[in-house]
Amino acid sequence: MKKVGVAILGLGIVGGGTYKILTEHREFYKRTQDVDIVVESVLELNPERVKALGVPESAVAGNIAEVVSNPDVNIVVEVIGGIGIAREFVLAALNAGKTVVTSNKELFCKYSHELERAAKRHNAGLYFEASCVGGVPIIRTLLDGLQANNITSMMGIINGTTNYILTKMSEEGASYADVLHDAQKLGYAEADPTADVEGFDAAYKLSILSSIAFHTKVPFSKVFREGISGVSREDIAYGKEFGYCLKLLAIGKQTENGIEARVHPTFIKKEHPLASVNDSFNAVYLTGDAVDDVMLYGRGAGALPTGSAIVSDIIYAATHSENKYSTFKNTASADKETDFVNNFESAYYLRLTIEDKSGVLAKISSVFAKYNISIVEMIQKPSAHADKATLLLITHKTRELSVKNAVAKIDATEIAKVDSVLRVVS
Amino acid sequence: MKKVGVAILGLGIVGGGTYKILTEHREFYKRTQDVDIVVESVLELNPERVKALGVPESAVAGNIAEVVSNPDVNIVVEVIGGIGIAREFVLAALNAGKTVVTSNKELFCKYSHELERAAKRHNAGLYFEASCVGGVPIIRTLLDGLQANNITSMMGIINGTTNYILTKMSEEGASYADVLHDAQKLGYAEADPTADVEGFDAAYKLSILSSIAFHTKVPFSKVFREGISGVSREDIAYGKEFGYCLKLLAIGKQTENGIEARVHPTFIKKEHPLASVNDSFNAVYLTGDAVDDVMLYGRGAGALPTGSAIVSDIIYAATHSENKYSTFKNTASADKETDFVNNFESAYYLRLTIEDKSGVLAKISSVFAKYNISIVEMIQKPSAHADKATLLLITHKTRELSVKNAVAKIDATEIAKVDSVLRVVS
Repeated sequence: MKKVGVAILGLGIVGGGTYKILTEHREFYKRTQDVDIVVESVLELNPERVKALGVPESAVAGNIAEVVSNPDVNIVVEVIGGIGIAREFVLAALNAGKTVVTSNKELFCKYSHELERAAKRHNAGLYFEASCVGGVPIIRTLLDGLQANNITSMMGIINGTTNYILTKMSEEGASYADVLHDAQKLGYAEADPTADVEGFDAAYKLSILSSIAFHTKVPFSKVFREGISGVSREDIAYGKEFGYCLKLLAIGKQTENGIEARVHPTFIKKEHPLASVNDSFNAVYLTGDAVDDVMLYGRGAGALPTGSAIVSDIIYAATHSENKYSTFKNTASADKETDFVNNFESAYYLRLTIEDKSGVLAKISSVFAKYNISIVEMIQKPSAHADKATLLLITHKTRELSVKNAVAKIDATEIAKVDSVLRVVS
Repeated sequence: MKKVGVAILGLGIVGGGTYKILTEHREFYKRTQDVDIVVESVLELNPERVKALGVPESAVAGNIAEVVSNPDVNIVVEVIGGIGIAREFVLAALNAGKTVVTSNKELFCKYSHELERAAKRHNAGLYFEASCVGGVPIIRTLLDGLQANNITSMMGIINGTTNYILTKMSEEGASYADVLHDAQKLGYAEADPTADVEGFDAAYKLSILSSIAFHTKVPFSKVFREGISGVSREDIAYGKEFGYCLKLLAIGKQTENGIEARVHPTFIKKEHPLASVNDSFNAVYLTGDAVDDVMLYGRGAGALPTGSAIVSDIIYAATHSENKYSTFKNTASADKETDFVNNFESAYYLRLTIEDKSGVLAKISSVFAKYNISIVEMIQKPSAHADKATLLLITHKTRELSVKNAVAKIDATEIAKVDSVLRVVS
C-alpha cells in the first residue's frame, strides 16, 4: 500500500480539524482509498495547540526548513492564512518539490501564477479546494465534473458571516449594527469584520472560482465589490413586499462584451433556490451550456467541513499521478487578453425620499427616461417626515452607469433624494 | 496535443446530445482541456438519426466488431440502455481494451462486478457518471470531492418523472391518474411508466450511489422499493396541513445494524432543502462525518444534461492515466459481508377511517401501545361517510415491522381501517 506523509503548517481551527480527520480516518482511508496517510510533521508556534491535539513530540518541527527537507513529507498543508509567511512557506514547499494543499483564498487569488510556476518547475501538485466554500467540492466539480461545459454564469452565496447577518436581519427585522454585534459575540463574525462584511473574502473566492470556470485569470482587481455594511432593515422589509430576499451574491458571467465579476448585496426572487440558503450555509448556482442549471450547497466554513476539502485534496493528490494546473492565459499583472465589464447590466431597486407635491413624479420620470431606464414596478408610501413620501422602484435591466448617472441627477434636483440602490436578479 | 477517438453506441436522445456536445465543443476542449476529442465511429441502426445529426458516412460502423477493432477508437460510449445488447457491446469494448463510458443504470447496477472484472483484466477504464442524476456530477463528487468523509446518509430525489407527477399533484390538487396522463402526453412519462412510477429507476440509481458512498456493493435486490402509483391527492393535501411535502425519496443510510437502502414516497418538512426541488429537477442530499450536509441539485435527465455527464467522463478518462475501480468488497450474488436492514426505523403518517363512536380511539391507541408506537400529532376530521371519521396520525420514530403489524391488527378490528401509510423524514 502506498504511504503518503503529510505536514500541516498551522494548527488553528482548520489545521486542527485537518489533523483530527487525518488521524481518526487513517484506517478508513487504508480500507477505502488504498493509501496510508500519516501526519509526519506539524509546524505550530503555540505549544498549547500542539498539546490539545495530542500531536506526538517527534512530529513537531522547529521551522519550515525542517519540514520541507523531511524526505518522509510528500504533501504540505498550508492553513496559516494571509499573504506574508504563508506565501513564503508555500513557495519553500513547492521549491522542494512537495505538493501543496492550501485553504488560503487570498494567497491563491493574488499569487496563483507565481505558485503555479513554482509547482510546475518542481513537478509538485498544487490544490486549493478548501480556499472556496468550505466543504462544498466546487473546484473539483468545475475541474472534473462539469468540464464538458462552457460555464456561462455562476451566482454564489460564498461568505457565511454575511449570510448569517442578512438572514437574521430578515428574520428578526433587526438592524445591521445589532446583528453584527450579536454575530461577534457568537463567534460568527470577527472582531474586525471588514474582510467579510465589505465583501473582500467573497471577492477573493469569486476571483478563484470565475478564473477556473471561465478558463482565464479573473484578477481580484477586476472584481466589483460592495459590502453589506450599508444595508438597512427598511430595504430588506420593502424587498419582501416585492417578493425578494436580500443576499450578498458573488456573480460571474461571460457576456458578449467580456467577463463580469461582482460581489454586492442583491435582491433575488424568494422562489430561487439561492433564496432559501440561510444562516451560515453557502451555495453556488452554476449554468453550463450543456448541463443547464446546477447548484451545490453546504457548509462554507468550519474546522471539519473545511478539513474535508483539505483531506479530499490530499487523497486526490496521493492517488492521481498527474499534476494539473489551471494555466490561465493571462496573468494578474497583464490581463489584456481578457475584457472585463464594469458597466454591467442588471435590474435595480431604488428607494427615494421625495417631496410630496405635484410635478415631482414627472420630474423623476423624465430623468429615468433620459437614461433609458424603464420601470417594472413602483410603490409610493407615506414617509415619517411631513410633506415627504417614500418611492420604491424596480427597474428593467439597465446599465450600472446609467443608474449612477440618473441617481446623481435626481439627487441634484433637491425635490428628491435616492436613499438606496440595490441590484436585483430576477 | 493528445488525440482521443470516441465511438458512440446508440444515437437516441442521450447519444444525440453527446454527439452534438462533442462536435460543437471540439475547439473548446482543445483550448481548455488540451485534448482533441474526435467522434471516430457511431453504431446506430436507424439511418434517420444518423442523418439528422449530420454524422459523416465514414464514421458509421456496421457492427460492434467494427467499432471495437478500430484502432482509432479509445473510448466507447454506451447509451443503448437495458441489459441485453448493451451488456454484450460493453463487454466486447472492455475485452478489446477500450475504455467505456455508459449512462446505463440498470446495466451498471446489475453487472458492475462483471464489467469491472473485464475492465481491470484489459486495463480499460469504466465510467458511469451519466447513469445517475443526469448532469449532476454526484458520482465524481463521491469519488473525488468528498472522499475524505465517511458518508453516513444520503437522501435523493433521483427520478424526474415521479418528481414531476408529485409536484403537479401537489400544486394542482389533481389525481395521480390525471397527472400521469398529462405527463405522458408531454413526453415526461413513458407509455409504459412502470420503471419510473414503481421506483425501479430510482432503485437502480440508489444501488449504484449507495454502493459508492458506503464502499460496499448494495445490490438491487436489497433495495426496499415502493412506487408512487398508490399515492392519493388526499394524503398530499393532509400532509400539507402537517407542514409536509411528498417526494419519492431514495434513502441510503449506514446504521449500527447495517446498511439501509430504500425508495418510497416520503413526507418531508417543507423547510428542508429537498422539499423545494420541484418538477423534473433532481437533487441528492448527503451527510458526511466531516463535511456535514451537502446538497447537489440539477437536471436529472435530458439530452444535453446527461450528455454533459458523459462528455465530462470522456474528458476525465482522456486526461487521467490511472483507471480506478470501485472494487466493492462483496458481489451481487454473495453479499454476506454486509448486513442490510429491512426492518428500518422511520416516522410514519397514517390515515385511518374509523367508526365515529366512543371506545374506538381507545382501541386504536391500545394497538399502537402494544407495538411501542407513540404518536406525535393526531387530527380527527369528519368523513364523507355517515358514522365515520378520518383520523390522521404522525408517529415518532418506530420500526417498519411494528407499523406493518399494527396496521394488520387495526384492520382486523373492523371498527377502523388504515387507508394509507407513508414514511416521514423529519
